[in-house]
Amino acid sequence: MTEQLASDAVRRHDPQVRGFASDNYAGVHPEILTALALANGGHQPAYGADVYTAHLQEVFRAHFGPRAEVFPVFNGTGANVTALQAVTERWGAVICAESAHIQVDECGAPERVGGLKLLTVPTPDGKLTPELIDRQAYGFDDEHRAQPQVVSITQTTELGTCYTPEEIKAICDHAHQLGMAVHLDGARIANAAASLDVPLARFTTEAGIDILSFGGTKNGLLLGECVVVLSPERVRAIDYLRKLSMQLASKMRFVSVQFEALLSGDLWLRGASHANAMARRLEHAVRGVEGVSVLRPVQSNAVFALLPREVSERLQKRYRFYFWDESTGEVRWMCSFDTTEADVDAFAAALEEEMRVHDHGPAAG
Amino acid sequence: MTEQLASDAVRRHDPQVRGFASDNYAGVHPEILTALALANGGHQPAYGADVYTAHLQEVFRAHFGPRAEVFPVFNGTGANVTALQAVTERWGAVICAESAHIQVDECGAPERVGGLKLLTVPTPDGKLTPELIDRQAYGFDDEHRAQPQVVSITQTTELGTCYTPEEIKAICDHAHQLGMAVHLDGARIANAAASLDVPLARFTTEAGIDILSFGGTKNGLLLGECVVVLSPERVRAIDYLRKLSMQLASKMRFVSVQFEALLSGDLWLRGASHANAMARRLEHAVRGVEGVSVLRPVQSNAVFALLPREVSERLQKRYRFYFWDESTGEVRWMCSFDTTEADVDAFAAALEEEMRVHDHGPAAG
Amino acid sequence: MTEQLASDAVRRHDPQVRGFASDNYAGVHPEILTALALANGGHQPAYGADVYTAHLQEVFRAHFGPRAEVFPVFNGTGANVTALQAVTERWGAVICAESAHIQVDECGAPERVGGLKLLTVPTPDGKLTPELIDRQAYGFDDEHRAQPQVVSITQTTELGTCYTPEEIKAICDHAHQLGMAVHLDGARIANAAASLDVPLARFTTEAGIDILSFGGTKNGLLLGECVVVLSPERVRAIDYLRKLSMQLASKMRFVSVQFEALLSGDLWLRGASHANAMARRLEHAVRGVEGVSVLRPVQSNAVFALLPREVSERLQKRYRFYFWDESTGEVRWMCSFDTTEADVDAFAAALEEEMRVHDHGPAAG
Amino acid sequence: MTEQLASDAVRRHDPQVRGFASDNYAGVHPEILTALALANGGHQPAYGADVYTAHLQEVFRAHFGPRAEVFPVFNGTGANVTALQAVTERWGAVICAESAHIQVDECGAPERVGGLKLLTVPTPDGKLTPELIDRQAYGFDDEHRAQPQVVSITQTTELGTCYTPEEIKAICDHAHQLGMAVHLDGARIANAAASLDVPLARFTTEAGIDILSFGGTKNGLLLGECVVVLSPERVRAIDYLRKLSMQLASKMRFVSVQFEALLSGDLWLRGASHANAMARRLEHAVRGVEGVSVLRPVQSNAVFALLPREVSERLQKRYRFYFWDESTGEVRWMCSFDTTEADVDAFAAALEEEMRVHDHGPAAG
Repeated sequence: MTEQLASDAVRRHDPQVRGFASDNYAGVHPEILTALALANGGHQPAYGADVYTAHLQEVFRAHFGPRAEVFPVFNGTGANVTALQAVTERWGAVICAESAHIQVDECGAPERVGGLKLLTVPTPDGKLTPELIDRQAYGFDDEHRAQPQVVSITQTTELGTCYTPEEIKAICDHAHQLGMAVHLDGARIANAAASLDVPLARFTTEAGIDILSFGGTKNGLLLGECVVVLSPERVRAIDYLRKLSMQLASKMRFVSVQFEALLSGDLWLRGASHANAMARRLEHAVRGVEGVSVLRPVQSNAVFALLPREVSERLQKRYRFYFWDESTGEVRWMCSFDTTEADVDAFAAALEEEMRVHDHGPAAG
Repeated sequence: MTEQLASDAVRRHDPQVRGFASDNYAGVHPEILTALALANGGHQPAYGADVYTAHLQEVFRAHFGPRAEVFPVFNGTGANVTALQAVTERWGAVICAESAHIQVDECGAPERVGGLKLLTVPTPDGKLTPELIDRQAYGFDDEHRAQPQVVSITQTTELGTCYTPEEIKAICDHAHQLGMAVHLDGARIANAAASLDVPLARFTTEAGIDILSFGGTKNGLLLGECVVVLSPERVRAIDYLRKLSMQLASKMRFVSVQFEALLSGDLWLRGASHANAMARRLEHAVRGVEGVSVLRPVQSNAVFALLPREVSERLQKRYRFYFWDESTGEVRWMCSFDTTEADVDAFAAALEEEMRVHDHGPAAG
Repeated sequence: MTEQLASDAVRRHDPQVRGFASDNYAGVHPEILTALALANGGHQPAYGADVYTAHLQEVFRAHFGPRAEVFPVFNGTGANVTALQAVTERWGAVICAESAHIQVDECGAPERVGGLKLLTVPTPDGKLTPELIDRQAYGFDDEHRAQPQVVSITQTTELGTCYTPEEIKAICDHAHQLGMAVHLDGARIANAAASLDVPLARFTTEAGIDILSFGGTKNGLLLGECVVVLSPERVRAIDYLRKLSMQLASKMRFVSVQFEALLSGDLWLRGASHANAMARRLEHAVRGVEGVSVLRPVQSNAVFALLPREVSERLQKRYRFYFWDESTGEVRWMCSFDTTEADVDAFAAALEEEMRVHDHGPAAG
Repeated sequence: MTEQLASDAVRRHDPQVRGFASDNYAGVHPEILTALALANGGHQPAYGADVYTAHLQEVFRAHFGPRAEVFPVFNGTGANVTALQAVTERWGAVICAESAHIQVDECGAPERVGGLKLLTVPTPDGKLTPELIDRQAYGFDDEHRAQPQVVSITQTTELGTCYTPEEIKAICDHAHQLGMAVHLDGARIANAAASLDVPLARFTTEAGIDILSFGGTKNGLLLGECVVVLSPERVRAIDYLRKLSMQLASKMRFVSVQFEALLSGDLWLRGASHANAMARRLEHAVRGVEGVSVLRPVQSNAVFALLPREVSERLQKRYRFYFWDESTGEVRWMCSFDTTEADVDAFAAALEEEMRVHDHGPAAG
């Protein structure tokens, strides 16, 4: 497994081993590696003045409409915090679900980098609604209250659920009436389009989203996300905000060309559809296992399940995955663009085996 | 030039065209691309728990000594601001040269992301000295003054100059006596080692540097820098600071393996030595051109020159490069790992040509 | 009512008119004005190096024990944010009730000034418990999660309730076991001591509180709060944090002497006991009014009531007070050190009158 | 000296002792204390909704013209940082003199609270000029550079010098042409008006200043400064910024009434003129003392002098004052509204005495 190829680096891992821990555990789609090689060689202006980034505007406009503007960044937190700053003032606040990645998983970056206040709402399924938004959308013009200026939703949500275009439209209409912008954290936006079987614009541009974080890393990129502006009139100075948020890549052509490879054809959709299908296959397989319950609708590439904790722990010795909620023992299984049917079937078989051991003890030799 | 390989992306640039604008304009060294492919395939834990990042500790320790700890990040600003936060408190200040990248080129990221106050000192050559540091190193224990807690130097400097190990040692000794840490911005640290012809540790670990930003992007990486901790006892919580500074890569193996490829063998030194040699060749060539003066010692991969502004402007139509100082007309020419001797010679010839036009008018047809 | 004394300022208000809107609507206790005059004249060092601030240390130690250290500041938000920064690192988070002043009423100052992340918990009565704290006290050592480093409680709470010393001790023990400090927002700390009929130390120093905001403004001061450090070993650099948080008064003697006047004798307790007694009198009076319900235990100087909205609105034309919750119509009536029995009785009579009008229409002429 | 007056506080200082350390060492003008008493009693809405703050708008408009808007705050740093945030975006920078209070004496509050980048320029006398501003006013539209959006000047300067109205107008014209606003730090603005013998508007509103910090504390107030907006079209949301910067007083009537007392009549001018006159008297007296040189023009209430360090140190045992520059031994003597002619004469005599001791040794017994 430590294999050397015409480089001083050495292969240190088994490229055949895959688990269900995270779509971030997967590697790079081969077509993306090809695209990187293609953009290599010669000199190109740094910081986004290259031809690949220029062309990327067209690529995104083909998906999001003629007013879209795209700004490549490094990672999802960077995209979110850059985007949220662009639609808030120093006194602004962000309304989001209690389970939102910006609230839970970014070590306070929105607060620390952007000085943003997050106003959270508990949700049953990770999805906001106009009614839930109203629980925090008050106190406008009261100087004592951080001013709600943007609603941030995640599509697909951190709980694997998916907003319909109509649900998003209702949120946007409501937020706009209240003078707020709407941001969509699209770390898994491709999985949503695949799940809904609609074009990307249907639940973004057409639904009223003002700005979004477009995720690439979880869908086969080496590294890269984009801030996509859909309503330029509501958004300020992404270029400065990206730079001061430390998200401006010098050799940007290598971020941009990955998105070109992803979005010019159907690679984005192939990868996401496949990951979703693998999750449905997994759901189907584990629903048949007694003692395992699938807790949430499987609308993307995540399966959340409840099973005996010691079964999970034994299974984790064979496959990597995470507890989602330590207190309940709920686990999360993620599929990715490179998950195979054989991976799913082997995992389901392993689960069944460990459940059997749990129920009857280890089989006699 | 728009050539498609087995990807939906298209080659949009001429891989034979190179200029002298920036080492960020260069692409990726082929051995780095090979390393990326090598680390691909299968699943690896995200956020630095992968085998490549684990191994990277050893790679850096081979260069910087057994106490070194390495934390890959996305870009130079991210490395600098993460590192500086790790050696300062909320009330801390950073003493640096007026020409420092953190002061001039980061859109206020140190102030905005880290709440850091920069205390700057004018320098003739981009280099601090104990005496220059003393111009800002006062007011300790005075609550009205942002407390100087770290000195930040750049090696090689933004002006292409290079500190000797002794000069750095004097700075570190002085700073430590005053209770301050020392950070080294090593965006071009390899060029310094090549120029000084010493191992990396000589002017870092051995000279007393506490923490540094190790640059990869300008030396042939696709993207990636590292925060390297040399004095763990002076440094706090890089892991949290990297995350909240939005510099934590999910698929970190692809950042780490590039540094392994760079630093396991001599790729880092080959690239930097070559770039330096090309700068010296360029200096030599242009010194011979009447009306062009090279203003600063060429100690790395940069040549700063003064020539008639309209010559520069005409030359810029043939080769990309930047004015360094709009007010004086000083220009900066950068060489990189992929600059060829032919590139230099052609550029020098072009310069000579444009100077001739300037002196005598365009040659008659 | 516009009356001129030997000054160019003019009296523009009726000093006999009092309402039930806020203890911030009240003026300055006459003994406090006397103390200001006493500290006037001559020169005294600025920024807290004066004799009044020096003596204030003893004054607070008499109440809070020999390890207490006091730092006067301007206002409650300033005290809270200074104190919270002193017990957190850049990556820290604060666990607090959803109803906490720091969450609801400070326009995001903790996030924007201190970069603090607030982790909130819904509570029935504004009071945290170890169990409620555990809903946010997790993810220690996980770099993705803002690290819970301090629990902040309010005494008396924003809902007029009061923790017992035992309840606070349980919180402190629990927080300390988890490695967290405990901050007490004591904007109405005197009302709590009066309500509990115990010395201030009983539910602070002796219960394990590490740092607190001591409120003066709501208890008869012209302006002024104090950060009081009870566990110096858990607290960092209040002097720098106070200055950079813009809470360092130059003529500090005039803040300090007010606290001396408040706390050297029993002025603090007289004012708070009186305000509490007036709230109980008000509660008693309005409980007799049909159609009015008092919703929460009256444990300090606040009465929360539910009554027909149009009655409230008519009553507001006669007396200033606020809706606490616009959605339910709940109102809040606050008593202060200068509320008189006659004020309470007249207000209760007015309420009764307006309820009668509501029930029967205006009386015939 | 420890004298009790109908309050639990005790007089702890000698009201006859005055020094030359700082105008912050002085107390409160008796007319200000009277005004505080006048505003006392009864209830008034908090947070600036009171009648005194309402009237204050008129008071300031009488001085600064009909478009002026005034926002009382606690202290000078608070006024400066609130004002500067109101004329900058998250990516903005402030051009100021290297000696500016915001740069030197605020422990990084502008950077930490406002995320502001300061771009400093060395000046001979604390005064900026259009030419000096140009040393930092570049890089507009370059995302790498923090965008210069405001010039901040101090009147009178930290070095005791005074801009003429024409000098300020030239700065404002220049800044406006470049798209920048101009802020005036008027901690000693009254001393400037007294020195120039012109109305306040002459060198502010009429000269083009957009926003200013109006100092009260150094001119006889107990505590209080104001942000004054002169160009509302260039300024954003002071109300939110004041609150989130923790500068919103709850019992604001007691800040506002002090400014009414100061500015309704001529108290502001009397105090400042007197302080200036005392400084000129002091300058005159010490110019006669051999071995003492007055280094800077005395244009306000400060005298900067050079004398043998050991003379200064002996003199400090008799009178409080500060070294301005430890490295050169320069000292600063400040006069205030309550400095008497006798104070000046006695101080000058003491200085002469100590110089004599220095020159000839202590007189024989």
